[in-house]
Amino acid sequence: MSKLWQKKTTDTDSDAAKKVEAFTVGNDYELDQRLVPCDVKGSVAHAKALLKAKVITADENKRLEKALNRILNIWEKGEFVIRIEDEDMHTAIENHLSEQLGELGRKIHAGRSRNDQVLTAMRLYEKETLGDILEMVKGCADELLGLAEENREVLLPGYTHTRKAMLSTIGLWAGGFAEMLIMQAESAAGIQKLINRSPLGTAAGFGTTFDIDRVYESELLGFEGPLICATTAQLSRGWVELQLVQFLAGITSVLNRLASDIIQYSSEAYGFFDLDVSVCTGSSIMPQKKNPDVAELIRGGHSVVVGCASTLQTVSANLISGYHRDLQLTKEPVLKAIDKTSELLEAAKLLIRSVRPDREACRKACSYEIFAAEKANAMVRDEGLSFREAYRRVAAELKHEDAVPRDIRLEQYSHLGAPGNPGLALLRKRLLRM
Amino acid sequence: MSKLWQKKTTDTDSDAAKKVEAFTVGNDYELDQRLVPCDVKGSVAHAKALLKAKVITADENKRLEKALNRILNIWEKGEFVIRIEDEDMHTAIENHLSEQLGELGRKIHAGRSRNDQVLTAMRLYEKETLGDILEMVKGCADELLGLAEENREVLLPGYTHTRKAMLSTIGLWAGGFAEMLIMQAESAAGIQKLINRSPLGTAAGFGTTFDIDRVYESELLGFEGPLICATTAQLSRGWVELQLVQFLAGITSVLNRLASDIIQYSSEAYGFFDLDVSVCTGSSIMPQKKNPDVAELIRGGHSVVVGCASTLQTVSANLISGYHRDLQLTKEPVLKAIDKTSELLEAAKLLIRSVRPDREACRKACSYEIFAAEKANAMVRDEGLSFREAYRRVAAELKHEDAVPRDIRLEQYSHLGAPGNPGLALLRKRLLRM
Amino acid sequence: MSKLWQKKTTDTDSDAAKKVEAFTVGNDYELDQRLVPCDVKGSVAHAKALLKAKVITADENKRLEKALNRILNIWEKGEFVIRIEDEDMHTAIENHLSEQLGELGRKIHAGRSRNDQVLTAMRLYEKETLGDILEMVKGCADELLGLAEENREVLLPGYTHTRKAMLSTIGLWAGGFAEMLIMQAESAAGIQKLINRSPLGTAAGFGTTFDIDRVYESELLGFEGPLICATTAQLSRGWVELQLVQFLAGITSVLNRLASDIIQYSSEAYGFFDLDVSVCTGSSIMPQKKNPDVAELIRGGHSVVVGCASTLQTVSANLISGYHRDLQLTKEPVLKAIDKTSELLEAAKLLIRSVRPDREACRKACSYEIFAAEKANAMVRDEGLSFREAYRRVAAELKHEDAVPRDIRLEQYSHLGAPGNPGLALLRKRLLRM
Amino acid sequence: MSKLWQKKTTDTDSDAAKKVEAFTVGNDYELDQRLVPCDVKGSVAHAKALLKAKVITADENKRLEKALNRILNIWEKGEFVIRIEDEDMHTAIENHLSEQLGELGRKIHAGRSRNDQVLTAMRLYEKETLGDILEMVKGCADELLGLAEENREVLLPGYTHTRKAMLSTIGLWAGGFAEMLIMQAESAAGIQKLINRSPLGTAAGFGTTFDIDRVYESELLGFEGPLICATTAQLSRGWVELQLVQFLAGITSVLNRLASDIIQYSSEAYGFFDLDVSVCTGSSIMPQKKNPDVAELIRGGHSVVVGCASTLQTVSANLISGYHRDLQLTKEPVLKAIDKTSELLEAAKLLIRSVRPDREACRKACSYEIFAAEKANAMVRDEGLSFREAYRRVAAELKHEDAVPRDIRLEQYSHLGAPGNPGLALLRKRLLRM
Repeated sequence: MSKLWQKKTTDTDSDAAKKVEAFTVGNDYELDQRLVPCDVKGSVAHAKALLKAKVITADENKRLEKALNRILNIWEKGEFVIRIEDEDMHTAIENHLSEQLGELGRKIHAGRSRNDQVLTAMRLYEKETLGDILEMVKGCADELLGLAEENREVLLPGYTHTRKAMLSTIGLWAGGFAEMLIMQAESAAGIQKLINRSPLGTAAGFGTTFDIDRVYESELLGFEGPLICATTAQLSRGWVELQLVQFLAGITSVLNRLASDIIQYSSEAYGFFDLDVSVCTGSSIMPQKKNPDVAELIRGGHSVVVGCASTLQTVSANLISGYHRDLQLTKEPVLKAIDKTSELLEAAKLLIRSVRPDREACRKACSYEIFAAEKANAMVRDEGLSFREAYRRVAAELKHEDAVPRDIRLEQYSHLGAPGNPGLALLRKRLLRM
Repeated sequence: MSKLWQKKTTDTDSDAAKKVEAFTVGNDYELDQRLVPCDVKGSVAHAKALLKAKVITADENKRLEKALNRILNIWEKGEFVIRIEDEDMHTAIENHLSEQLGELGRKIHAGRSRNDQVLTAMRLYEKETLGDILEMVKGCADELLGLAEENREVLLPGYTHTRKAMLSTIGLWAGGFAEMLIMQAESAAGIQKLINRSPLGTAAGFGTTFDIDRVYESELLGFEGPLICATTAQLSRGWVELQLVQFLAGITSVLNRLASDIIQYSSEAYGFFDLDVSVCTGSSIMPQKKNPDVAELIRGGHSVVVGCASTLQTVSANLISGYHRDLQLTKEPVLKAIDKTSELLEAAKLLIRSVRPDREACRKACSYEIFAAEKANAMVRDEGLSFREAYRRVAAELKHEDAVPRDIRLEQYSHLGAPGNPGLALLRKRLLRM
Repeated sequence: MSKLWQKKTTDTDSDAAKKVEAFTVGNDYELDQRLVPCDVKGSVAHAKALLKAKVITADENKRLEKALNRILNIWEKGEFVIRIEDEDMHTAIENHLSEQLGELGRKIHAGRSRNDQVLTAMRLYEKETLGDILEMVKGCADELLGLAEENREVLLPGYTHTRKAMLSTIGLWAGGFAEMLIMQAESAAGIQKLINRSPLGTAAGFGTTFDIDRVYESELLGFEGPLICATTAQLSRGWVELQLVQFLAGITSVLNRLASDIIQYSSEAYGFFDLDVSVCTGSSIMPQKKNPDVAELIRGGHSVVVGCASTLQTVSANLISGYHRDLQLTKEPVLKAIDKTSELLEAAKLLIRSVRPDREACRKACSYEIFAAEKANAMVRDEGLSFREAYRRVAAELKHEDAVPRDIRLEQYSHLGAPGNPGLALLRKRLLRM
Repeated sequence: MSKLWQKKTTDTDSDAAKKVEAFTVGNDYELDQRLVPCDVKGSVAHAKALLKAKVITADENKRLEKALNRILNIWEKGEFVIRIEDEDMHTAIENHLSEQLGELGRKIHAGRSRNDQVLTAMRLYEKETLGDILEMVKGCADELLGLAEENREVLLPGYTHTRKAMLSTIGLWAGGFAEMLIMQAESAAGIQKLINRSPLGTAAGFGTTFDIDRVYESELLGFEGPLICATTAQLSRGWVELQLVQFLAGITSVLNRLASDIIQYSSEAYGFFDLDVSVCTGSSIMPQKKNPDVAELIRGGHSVVVGCASTLQTVSANLISGYHRDLQLTKEPVLKAIDKTSELLEAAKLLIRSVRPDREACRKACSYEIFAAEKANAMVRDEGLSFREAYRRVAAELKHEDAVPRDIRLEQYSHLGAPGNPGLALLRKRLLRM
């Protein structure tokens, strides 16, 4: 079946024409596969709006909705095929409708354009998957809090400059990462606000003469409201998506740092963590190796999301307003970033679960030097010295006392967020509240 | 005066030592100038917390506060100097305090570290400037809405693919950009959530044995609450800042697109806008030129903010947790992005004000072809054709009818967001509500 | 067949184990498909080096080579399958060898690691495809020069600040883009130098105790020489690749700007170019549209290459030396950038061919104002005025003389690179010399 | 003194006008300070070309050259001031010339534009500083080779996946980094090719009617030749600069990884290196700390160069050809990247010099497990086992033999690039040849 906009070319069958076709279609027909339910949802809403605008009759709407639901059924069975000749799902769906309904199938095109159709499908998909991802973020935070609670009092050296610095605990270490994820999830309100506006009914970016009730469409689709000006829709394309991907990178950045720590702490040089063999692989050449591949791929996976953001950032820079075909290229990086983030969150959950702290090794690493600041503090408190003076004395005394002090009193570190009081219950509460 | 951590080197006076000193100090002593009030504010709160923790007496706190306010006075007069030998404002301020108060001046260092000090000052500064920037965003949106309202019915061709596509208006065009800015401002809740947590009292990232009431500190400073785990503070350094800069880039990206349109529409080829001479410059070689330099520097300025984000994104990637000196490098890109965004917003406001639509030229550009879709729509409505069929007929008829139709009925485009109903009042309401 | 490094896990069949497997394998098994010939080539060279090192016999080498060539044959027929269970081509090929040769098939693994194997295959592939891409760059430059030569004297306004500035020609316009591509191709020596070093024999990045002649291997594979230190191999992984992708982005950036011009010049507002319908598409909603989709996808495609560079730039930042599994993630962005660049170059060639200058429209656009500088120049030359003074006089005289001067003497612009002397022959010579 | 292109505005003295002025001038007047000699050099060459073109007389040329050299003298004494009112050095220099020479001072403006002037100055500066930077790269490579040679046989564990993997040496470790720098320097031919073309005489990007001998100008300035087409000049602006900055990032990326290793190896957990106190700082709160700040700032400094590249990459994306004021913004990131790279190279040299390997600690870390692969290799060689089988046996035997083997025979690792034969002499030779 021919594409809607197709014009006659002088040499349709030529090699060049095929190359052009392949080039312009790109991989949309593949990417669109997952978006079919969102596009169908958008079409159902649009049909209802056409009914309200009296462009179609109640009966026509009913038949359209039935046919659309049939497409959804086929898709759910995994049998909805978007062929490369279809170019994208919109044409595939429309061809389906035409086959089923004849002229009526084409009527649904009134008052909309592929421009607002694809945007509507994308925003619906983004809304839905962002929700899923936030659940996964909470799942990871939950795992981290569990690890923190279970090892609340397991001593651990705290590092600054990759050097032992102060006393910490596994509770504090894992709690910090949990808090980062909780903060990111709590800040989702911003990006949700951006996604949560319906582009439907903006057509090619300037509206139409059909009397489409865009607020009604927006409600049918569960958006907070419509993008007001029709021109905003195409201006927002890529712009909202970039901010979404940056939000996802905010998540994967936390996983990146977490994975870095796990790799470091599970190395022989540190020996704080043992990783379950299920998240490790061996080496093809070195029999002794137990490599933290899952952690490394989580760490590295962040860069994929960063790359997606970079593409989105570049593609619309300096462009004048209005739809450009360049904007088609915003689809892939968003979907890729969503997939990668989900994948990393799932792997991170397994990784966190696989962490087995070697409590003895952790404790043993808490040697004298990390109590130097505490000693200086005590001198300030007890002997009335200035911190400066206390600092000078302690520095002078510290001579390779690398044994571990016998009595480490964690309860001394009592303020909120200190090793003796990491505030895990507060974090747990915030996590539950979300 | 010596720096707190200073160790003896074998050749303090050597050339190498000076190079190292210059290298490590960087330009902090310059960047910190503007942060002094925030650091003083943090110090005042910390002194109060030390009083509450009984590390200092009420009298000592009073004297500290007085001395800190004196520093603020000096700064307000523009007389507070941070010398390169001071390295940064923290040392400069502490030296001041020591000179005024002797040992007491040093006592304020108890229970904190430069790590949480600088982070506290930064977050306070970020909170404050983000507020200012949001006001400027609203100011720009207000100008755009003003332009839209004043030219609500001025016809303009709407472009897709850089080609005339559909009927639009200056109202719709300017309204779309206003809506983008309003959306971005409305989505600020996310980034505000991230910034609005106090790092004070986390010291070097693991807390201390002083009984600092971090919630109290947080309240004194006007934060929503403290970062809970001490470890979160340094993990969040650069991470919060990156997301802030990305938010700013979300703003400058809108200005980038707006400026692109203004450049295009004020060119001879379009001739829709005349720009006031105040935002234009001439050419040193071509007497006839009236160049839209302000618009071009707004468009280009966006790339500066993008570069800042890129630095922040890279600096902490793959690092293990805990403070690293690398994180010092997060300060400059944040300050630069804040400055640039403010500058661009201010210039954008002037630019928008300088736009003088040539209404006649705009109208004349609305030639027959942009009504083709409308014609097809009418055939659908009135003759019961499918859109496909109507489309084919119109395409066949359209033969260089490039004159402008005599009667363009804007009221036909009646749905929300269409040229006849751009929804400016709704946007005005949202702008006022913020 | 089991993977070489596989260790027993407590619950191999569990869901988690499958997830971990899928996560760690990623899409290597797909990406590797095209790399099979390069890996085979590397294996043939390695077998020869093992023979030279007396690890295998001449007969064994012969049998290995024969079996490897058989794999190549299967691959050439499109029948070599890398299953997801194989994880990657290395295992797939090794399994094939084992099936054919038993223990001998495994012997080829001596003295190498997957780390140097994959790097060798990648660098071979990069060398080869860079050569192809440079040919395509030359092909595009040739098209542009052809367009320039054919329209050498077709007048065109030259734009600065998106405004008419000075006299130009299509010859100069197209010649400039040709020169950019020629310059980029001429600068390929740099990146070729980086790619052209053999990593083979570095094993896991520290060499082995087998007496592998790495110079010999390097010669067999056509490299300039080996990477000297074994440690350099893994350090260079991603680093060489990033610079390759940046080089490719240097190409696509030229195409990006070229496409921007073509889009602009073929719009109604300019009307300088007519584009062949074969590189345009219509609109689903606007019958009159003839959209420059191919040009837009070329312009936008550049951002994909930029994103690939961004991933490569981030993935190894701040990492310590030695192989990390993160480096596996360098493969996809390189292959993607190579594909995208090829695709854009091919499309660009078709696009350039499709440009039909409307000579009359171009000429008509050369109105009086673009000769203002020339007038001032003439006053300097003929009346002995300073340029400043001449400039002031011309600016005062210029009063909307927007008609086109009758006699535009192109030969006046006579210096090298000026419209009357664009230097196309020099560029043609440089192109031929490459 | 008024600027050349200045037009009357209705309210020159208003606040808005001042803001616009400050906004458009930016910080060019500061950035240009260092470029003065390059601009003078360009002006001297241009004057000669004007003489050749008979626009000025021999006497006029002489007087111009003398006056320009006077400016150079003033600059060398540090007394050449570019005031903010001058906007940039070009105006400042021209004002100087006018004061000295009256009308003649203005004549030099004939046949050129600020567009080619600034580009010429930039390319001259880039050529010169790239040369300096390459010298510094060689200096760092030389230090690394020195360190490698001095510690050629000092055993060190080689790490993969941040785990002990195989035997290495400090010679191999440092040699690898030296090789990376040597490779990067050897690949400079590419970027040099791009920089080495003279933009002078292209004026505003379309040439002029003056008969300027651009080849002659190019020779006077020491370029390989002119950019041929005048249009290429502005197309190349930012494009050449981006590739230069990417080349610099290729250098700083090596320093980034080197610094990461030095930080790791000098930590307590590794203890391989002691760093001279001159490159370390202490902590304000922890008396025991000896922090590798110089190494951390080198590691982090790379991100600054990355940010500069990102700005350059974004600023001209999707723009049509011809000069745009946006391109003014390409100056700062180039200068910043050049400064930062120089600074990092200088600091890296000091850092490398400060590395004191703890040979005993390094040797002790070479425990049994890193010889597992070697053992398997021996079984292959001596017992005729396949590597697979040998691997399985070794893996089974390896049971916490963590003592260091008594006799490590480095000479066994004999192939080029292996620990026993790191190839330092070859690298030394390549370094000397450059």
